[in-house]
Amino acid sequence: MKVSIIGASGYTGGELLRLLVQHPEVEIKYIFSRKNEGKYVHEIHPFLKNILNIKFASFNNIESAFNSDIIFSCVPHGVSMNIIPSLIESGVKIIDLSADFRLKSVEEYKAWYNIDHKNPELLNEFIYGIPEINKEKISSASLVSNPGCIAIASILALYPFAKRRKISDLIFIDAKVGSSGSGRSIKLSSIFSERFGSIRAYKAAMHRHTPEIEEQLRMYSGVNLNVSLSAHSVNNVRGILVTSYVNYYDDVSNIWSYFREDYGSEKFVRIIRNPRGIYKLPDPKFLIGSNFVDIGFELDNRNKKTIIISALDNLVKGAAGNAIQCMNLMFGLKETEGLLFPPIYPV
Amino acid sequence: MKVSIIGASGYTGGELLRLLVQHPEVEIKYIFSRKNEGKYVHEIHPFLKNILNIKFASFNNIESAFNSDIIFSCVPHGVSMNIIPSLIESGVKIIDLSADFRLKSVEEYKAWYNIDHKNPELLNEFIYGIPEINKEKISSASLVSNPGCIAIASILALYPFAKRRKISDLIFIDAKVGSSGSGRSIKLSSIFSERFGSIRAYKAAMHRHTPEIEEQLRMYSGVNLNVSLSAHSVNNVRGILVTSYVNYYDDVSNIWSYFREDYGSEKFVRIIRNPRGIYKLPDPKFLIGSNFVDIGFELDNRNKKTIIISALDNLVKGAAGNAIQCMNLMFGLKETEGLLFPPIYPV
Amino acid sequence: MKVSIIGASGYTGGELLRLLVQHPEVEIKYIFSRKNEGKYVHEIHPFLKNILNIKFASFNNIESAFNSDIIFSCVPHGVSMNIIPSLIESGVKIIDLSADFRLKSVEEYKAWYNIDHKNPELLNEFIYGIPEINKEKISSASLVSNPGCIAIASILALYPFAKRRKISDLIFIDAKVGSSGSGRSIKLSSIFSERFGSIRAYKAAMHRHTPEIEEQLRMYSGVNLNVSLSAHSVNNVRGILVTSYVNYYDDVSNIWSYFREDYGSEKFVRIIRNPRGIYKLPDPKFLIGSNFVDIGFELDNRNKKTIIISALDNLVKGAAGNAIQCMNLMFGLKETEGLLFPPIYPV
Amino acid sequence: MKVSIIGASGYTGGELLRLLVQHPEVEIKYIFSRKNEGKYVHEIHPFLKNILNIKFASFNNIESAFNSDIIFSCVPHGVSMNIIPSLIESGVKIIDLSADFRLKSVEEYKAWYNIDHKNPELLNEFIYGIPEINKEKISSASLVSNPGCIAIASILALYPFAKRRKISDLIFIDAKVGSSGSGRSIKLSSIFSERFGSIRAYKAAMHRHTPEIEEQLRMYSGVNLNVSLSAHSVNNVRGILVTSYVNYYDDVSNIWSYFREDYGSEKFVRIIRNPRGIYKLPDPKFLIGSNFVDIGFELDNRNKKTIIISALDNLVKGAAGNAIQCMNLMFGLKETEGLLFPPIYPV
Repeated sequence: MKVSIIGASGYTGGELLRLLVQHPEVEIKYIFSRKNEGKYVHEIHPFLKNILNIKFASFNNIESAFNSDIIFSCVPHGVSMNIIPSLIESGVKIIDLSADFRLKSVEEYKAWYNIDHKNPELLNEFIYGIPEINKEKISSASLVSNPGCIAIASILALYPFAKRRKISDLIFIDAKVGSSGSGRSIKLSSIFSERFGSIRAYKAAMHRHTPEIEEQLRMYSGVNLNVSLSAHSVNNVRGILVTSYVNYYDDVSNIWSYFREDYGSEKFVRIIRNPRGIYKLPDPKFLIGSNFVDIGFELDNRNKKTIIISALDNLVKGAAGNAIQCMNLMFGLKETEGLLFPPIYPV
Repeated sequence: MKVSIIGASGYTGGELLRLLVQHPEVEIKYIFSRKNEGKYVHEIHPFLKNILNIKFASFNNIESAFNSDIIFSCVPHGVSMNIIPSLIESGVKIIDLSADFRLKSVEEYKAWYNIDHKNPELLNEFIYGIPEINKEKISSASLVSNPGCIAIASILALYPFAKRRKISDLIFIDAKVGSSGSGRSIKLSSIFSERFGSIRAYKAAMHRHTPEIEEQLRMYSGVNLNVSLSAHSVNNVRGILVTSYVNYYDDVSNIWSYFREDYGSEKFVRIIRNPRGIYKLPDPKFLIGSNFVDIGFELDNRNKKTIIISALDNLVKGAAGNAIQCMNLMFGLKETEGLLFPPIYPV
Repeated sequence: MKVSIIGASGYTGGELLRLLVQHPEVEIKYIFSRKNEGKYVHEIHPFLKNILNIKFASFNNIESAFNSDIIFSCVPHGVSMNIIPSLIESGVKIIDLSADFRLKSVEEYKAWYNIDHKNPELLNEFIYGIPEINKEKISSASLVSNPGCIAIASILALYPFAKRRKISDLIFIDAKVGSSGSGRSIKLSSIFSERFGSIRAYKAAMHRHTPEIEEQLRMYSGVNLNVSLSAHSVNNVRGILVTSYVNYYDDVSNIWSYFREDYGSEKFVRIIRNPRGIYKLPDPKFLIGSNFVDIGFELDNRNKKTIIISALDNLVKGAAGNAIQCMNLMFGLKETEGLLFPPIYPV
Repeated sequence: MKVSIIGASGYTGGELLRLLVQHPEVEIKYIFSRKNEGKYVHEIHPFLKNILNIKFASFNNIESAFNSDIIFSCVPHGVSMNIIPSLIESGVKIIDLSADFRLKSVEEYKAWYNIDHKNPELLNEFIYGIPEINKEKISSASLVSNPGCIAIASILALYPFAKRRKISDLIFIDAKVGSSGSGRSIKLSSIFSERFGSIRAYKAAMHRHTPEIEEQLRMYSGVNLNVSLSAHSVNNVRGILVTSYVNYYDDVSNIWSYFREDYGSEKFVRIIRNPRGIYKLPDPKFLIGSNFVDIGFELDNRNKKTIIISALDNLVKGAAGNAIQCMNLMFGLKETEGLLFPPIYPV
């Protein structure tokens, strides 16, 4: 299978390359970069030295990718919407990792991203790519939009409750995120001396992944569900932990059964809830580098609430790994193909 | 002023020593340790080498401390309640840093700590030591109980709302805590290889600081306020960030004015809310080593909620520094005496 | 191929499991643990949940492993020498990851490990397993001793000079090592609060990997070469950087050609020496999780010395990965089988 | 005493401010910044909020500082040499923290910094400011040049040997340095995701602090001593550990006596060499935030070498703290005035 990547210089692009070179069915065809045209991939992603020996192609030659089987687009939101239409025309399958095609509502897009969407008619063409929820739709899709990293951790935590209409009140979501989630941009607050050791509410209210979480939960539950999402950066490069505060209460065994029913046969979801040992509840440390999402919960028995904890590696299940999982489905491959490797521990 | 410390081998004891040696009015008299009797202080707290040259005394000779002006007790909860009564009898002033005298209700104590309180009659003798709120009571007190580190960050965030009866619904509190908050104990999950890089809900629901937060908020507001407190460890040694999700909504300027009115003249409270720059909302990185507590807030305009962010150094304003601030008040010293030094940045 | 592991509870054992489950030719047969008999592997190595579902077997049943094709022994030095003889008798191939069979000289073993070797006659039976140097011998070996993590980084840095007899004077080696190199033991100086942020000469002189480096260099050069090895722990879990100070001086191009000649066709050695970009000289950050060893050098033109820099992941090329590379050779597999995956970056 | 700072926006400037606001004899008069003129100090150094409330002045008004008692210059090398002459003319005392006035030889300056020195005649006017060595000269000086952070750690480690003419051969110095040592500059390799976890030989040979180390050692020993200095960045913000490999060998007690004789009465030098406990040899973790330099050593008995370990906080004893120590001497104050506070531990 021939695969090309547009916008391959960032961390998501690098992670796609890390995973795709290990995928038994994939041949990496073209990688495009606006700024690094003509450079070898290991000049920008030095970890790939001796692993992959190709050069970045120019955005001007993007049509060379039209004969790929699939293109991953990793350009930023606002840019992706301008590039995607010509790709679609070529007939190639597409997985877009930007925010441009995640929402169905053009008004919501405008409200949250402050950009007029150039191709609103395409919004309904894209399938929102969470294989654990949309497996069939993704399997027959040509166009998939990959969720935001906080969104996927939140949605998988809440889906069993939304689907069963167990929640209707506002959900508070408190996300703790590693630095790679905000990309490779260079600014004062990102330098090591300034960021090391910080615990920072970088978006204390109304983080942009809110509308996709709400839209998806509405689809599963049939009712409007509001989310108040607060995002914090912590002293990590990789990893997300999401704590969801839910106005629902039931026996542990019942809640456990929801997760079991929905995710019991899902290879990449691990339900973590151990009274003993070193791994009691989800913690990204135990899944770094892998495509797992770990989910667990605890009850506030006094206040009759459920606190759901979900963890993932933002560059794998939160981005590149999930996208490849979608790709596998879109091409009739085994869903886990090229993805069923263990986390790296300890790191 | 002669000061002694019981249980001086841990991090809180070490931090008291760090701060007290810099206090112009203090002479450190005796330091007691159950395990380290006879050792030099720098054998257990090597950072104090060339700074302080005394030995740990035995718990058997605790009466030698009776002629101190004040004793700080840093032994664990459950132990403190057994030691404190004889100290009280001696007439010495006491600041207890354990949980044993924080609550007024012996039933709550039993419910949360699973221990029968040996001296319930003392519970009402102790003043809960938050100088920004209880200044007068502390000033005339002989017995002060120092709040829990998460509790003080939470209470100071919520006090202006509770006092004005602006909140009545359940408050979700999501705390992110450095490793020193859980002391110097040695176990597998605490070793560097196992804990480095983790983001872990070590107490996902019903953390033990809950009842003191609720009890205090009830005192200020006159109504019952419930708290659902979730505590996470992050990749830091020092520092706490507390995110409080509150069902209250108002203009930024009004909320700002609450904080201004209550804390405008408080030297150790900084109100942080900047649209620009590298310091937009509270982050412990900007106050490590100092007695500051930084407080800010953001509004969720869609859901009409207020998210309050508070940060402190768990060993300073969350423990030893706050205790010394109380001591200053108890002895008629300037509240800031020995405490008005800047944070260390960057670290 | 049936593979068993003795002493599988530690980090080296866990890393062998991480890599072996991805190896296309391997079936993991038995894993033995002294302390964790009867427990599921994911209770001790939680990252393996949903990946590997076997239990630890007892040391008492070690003969069940005799029908494996190969056994990896990860028990500590001093213990390994007692277990290995019965394994050898069974005819199974063995890779020992302890220090017990690395040295040829029983006197040196006694001098450095302060233990009388129980089976000195076996010392010459074991091949010292560095595939880049001993490929043929390993390929025909039944017994391989895996080098120490600092030793392998040092030897690969120095081999081209030793082999060409370019060095004769004392070599200073300054190693910087992550915490996982010292295993999973629980002690005060290892807990997060005590070790985080430290830069510590944990063995400032005469580290135990010295004699194996010296013995190997003597074999390649034919002359005695002395090494003064100083080991430092730094604020990392994984990764080693070794700086070797060598009394040799030549043109960059000549030195470059030594490395090129010796390692140009070696898949796991990358020669790193770039004047520009983010990757100028070896840094473990760019190879974490992989079996690469990166080597580069700089000249001190004033003093006519060469400073050689080598980096590896102590658990992969410094332990489990290198051992599997040896296994591949011992069984006539492609040397890179199951090992040619990229590093994880950034992490 | 009126103190002004030129170039106060960086980490050294910020650290001077942190320490000077605690100094009982100092009034901070003017702080100058090229880029931040007119801004409040807490906009650039947010940790100083509520501590110091002044604005940055413009370089155009630098003469306003002429009536200060002392000016600290923290501008970069190459810039300092242009600013200093007019300051000198005004008669104000000066401590320069750049490299411009550290060397006596204008040829060496040119060779290492690749800049023609504009004011070579001033080189001999400046005293190299290491109070533990040059106390008298500094006490009567008007112009002091503050050493480089690696240089001061190296020189204090080697001084007892140089002074006693115990060393004559090349000394290898391997430095491990936190990120704050390279300042507040913004570039790709400095961002958190790229630098976190790295162990990097950022200057594997011939680091620029070499010539000042050599020049100083020559002054103490009377003979030429060559140094080969390799500098590595590690996963820390603050702290330096320097390992010096010296061709000298003697009894532990003799070497110990050298350090004792030279530093026994020095308040800021701690000699660390403990067989037991958590603090066996110098480690910056135990002195962060303080003006201590910790020095210890180990012998390589086989090779008859001494390995000297020295540690300091690069922003305190390696920069601002040492400069204030010099200031104290220059003004007849107690050498330790404003500086004798403990390290912060753990952090």
